[in-house]
Formats: sequence, structure tokens, C-alpha cells
Amino acid sequence: MAKKAPRRTAERILVAALELFNRFGEPNVSTTLISSELRISPGNLYYHYPSKDELVNTLFGQYEGQLYELLGASEDVRDVEDCWFFLHSLFELIWQYRFLYRDLNHLLSRNRRLETHFPVILMRKRGALRLLLDTLRPGQPLAAEDERTRDAVAASMVVLLTYWLSYEYVLQPRRALEPDNAEDALLRGAFHVLGLLAPHLDAEPRDHLQALIEAYVPATL
Amino acid sequence: MAKKAPRRTAERILVAALELFNRFGEPNVSTTLISSELRISPGNLYYHYPSKDELVNTLFGQYEGQLYELLGASEDVRDVEDCWFFLHSLFELIWQYRFLYRDLNHLLSRNRRLETHFPVILMRKRGALRLLLDTLRPGQPLAAEDERTRDAVAASMVVLLTYWLSYEYVLQPRRALEPDNAEDALLRGAFHVLGLLAPHLDAEPRDHLQALIEAYVPATL
Repeated sequence: MAKKAPRRTAERILVAALELFNRFGEPNVSTTLISSELRISPGNLYYHYPSKDELVNTLFGQYEGQLYELLGASEDVRDVEDCWFFLHSLFELIWQYRFLYRDLNHLLSRNRRLETHFPVILMRKRGALRLLLDTLRPGQPLAAEDERTRDAVAASMVVLLTYWLSYEYVLQPRRALEPDNAEDALLRGAFHVLGLLAPHLDAEPRDHLQALIEAYVPATL
Repeated sequence: MAKKAPRRTAERILVAALELFNRFGEPNVSTTLISSELRISPGNLYYHYPSKDELVNTLFGQYEGQLYELLGASEDVRDVEDCWFFLHSLFELIWQYRFLYRDLNHLLSRNRRLETHFPVILMRKRGALRLLLDTLRPGQPLAAEDERTRDAVAASMVVLLTYWLSYEYVLQPRRALEPDNAEDALLRGAFHVLGLLAPHLDAEPRDHLQALIEAYVPATL
């Protein structure tokens, strides 16, 4: 048992840091706040994570691992319903680590690891979304103009995926990132990302998508 | 002449602050940096702007005034070419005040004026973009489903308008916000926002839009 204690403390620190970062924003949370929240000494926290960036990087590593696993699932998407589920899962994961997105540009400007890894994340998201487009509306080879259109749609979907929560945050700064807004925010986000896809679908999957939206999505913000 | 000097200093401070905020991000620029850049004493700067927030608020007030004037022009948009010009002008204005968008969530969490004014800005942008959709494809009254689709398209266009530069920043943190990237970034942004509109247009304006894109827009990032 005694041997396990340090690992348990390290994990508790991570959980508390993630929760505080998500609620108040990473720039507004000091390591002192985290240690006092956990009722451990600053020295104990320092022993496990010598800087706040180590905490950020560890949490980021967790997110990155889960994201790449999830993005791999884009290969298994066969229809609009799979697609809906896939996007909703992506939003759920982003929600869990929403502090990364809340102050993304500020984090990037101070953290070399995020600066180098985040462009790769966005490019891999774009690749996965482009694959969805091609799966849901096959018809290769495409004209150059259609290639460009699909790349643009995939890029626009990435922007929505990445910044939908920020948009809700600007509209309702005191509510948007609190846990009781999660369900609606994720549905609205998935709805808007799918909305970019809809006009590029054939009639049947488009109607299917419309039915899903009417069944699940809350009123616009 | 002597009477004018204070006003000139106040204006010089604003210009320098805007440039530094845009280049390095507002959280990374102190009032001391601004005064040393201008070779004036911190006390002199303090006399004109007693806190950094006063600088931010004054710049924000300038942006807000220009934005509302520009958004009013959405009523004069008649065709795809006007629309392209309108969106490009919006991106140009956002570019001039890009520091507001670079760290938007962080600024909102600390500045009450931005927190209360920015939701209004996004809602007015959404109203202007919804108007574009209705102008370019008339046909009222719409079915409830189409109303909802158009509202969603307008909201997605606002997200792209608001965060396109942030997206470029994540992809190229050391280049995206530098002046020599401005022209391409603005064209790509306008292209992607218009791309959301395109599937909702009739064939003729859609072809016109496609021709504009081929003539003006640089390759995808």
C-alpha cells in the first residue's frame, strides 16, 4: 500500500487540475490553488509536477491519446447515424479537456509542446472529416473544383469543431462551460458541424440527418 | 500647439498599444513595454490611461464603432460580388483588431465591458449574415425547417468569421498573425465563410461565386 501512495497522489493532482482548469481557465489557476484544493502542501505538488506546464502537458498527452484513438474510428463510419455518433463523441472528448480550447492561442504562445502538437491535431481532424465526406458521398475521381470544395468543407468543419464551445462561451461567459450546459452544448455543436455536411449529401441521407436533428437537437442558442 | 500635445500623445499610445497587442497578444504586453516602445515614462502613459484595461476598452470602442457601421452595409448587398466584398471588409476590420480575437476568452473572463458587449457583437454579425442569406436567395415565407437551417448556417458563418484567424494561428503560430500573412489569410477566411453560403444559392450566383474563388483565393493552408 505504502508504495502506491505517490501514484495515487499524482493522479488526484491531475484530476483536480483538470477540473479547476476547465472551470476557471488555465491562466487563472495557480499550482498553489490546486494544492490548497487538495489540502496537500505546495512542496508535495511540486514533487510530482515541478511546474504548471508539466501538469498541462500530462493532461494534454491524455487528451491526444484518446483523440487519436477516436479519430481512427472515422474509418468505420458507414452512414449518417454513425457520423452523428462520431461527431458527438468528438465533442464529448473536447468537453472533457475544454480548458485546452478555452485559451488555446494563449497556451500555444507559451508552451512549445502544444505549439508543435496542435497543428498535427487539427490536420488529423481535417483528414478524418474529409474521409467522412468521401464515405457518405462516394464518387471518385472528383473534379479538381470538387476536391477543393470538399477540402474547404472539411476545414470549415474543423473550425466549428474546435471553436464551437468558445462561441457558446462568448455568448454566455458565466454558463457555457459549466457542467449543466454540457449536454445541450455538445448537441448544438454536433448539429452545426453536420449542418455543413448536409448540403453535400444525397436526398436520402439528408432526410435521415434532418430526422436525427429534429429528434435530438435543442433550440438554437 | 501646446494644447494639442496631450491628445497627440494619447493617440500615439493607442497606435503603439494596438500594434504590440496584435503582434504579441494582449496578455504578453505590459504597459511598461508600451511606454518603453514609445520612449515615454510609465507615469506619462499612466496619466493618459490609468490601466491596461482602459487601453483595451478604448481600442475595443473604436472597433465596435467601425464594426456596427460596416454591418449596416449588409442591407446594401445585392449579389454575390457585393457579398464577397462585404465579407472581405469584415475580415479586414477583424485583422486590424486581431488581438481581441486572439485571446478572446481570456479577455472576456477579466474584462466586464468585453464580457457584456461581445455577445451583442456576435448576435449582430449573425443578423447581418442571415440577411445576406435571405437577400441572395429570397423566397419567404420559409418552412420552419428552412428557417432553422438558415439560422444554423448564419451561426456557423459567425463562428468561421470569428475564429478563422485563430485557426490559422494554431496551424502556424509564428507566422499567422504577422502582417505579410494578412492578404492570404483574409482571402482564405472570406472563401470559407462564402463556402457555407454556396450550397444554399441557386445555380447562377453559385457559378459566379465559383469564378470569384478561382480568380482570387490562394491555395488552402
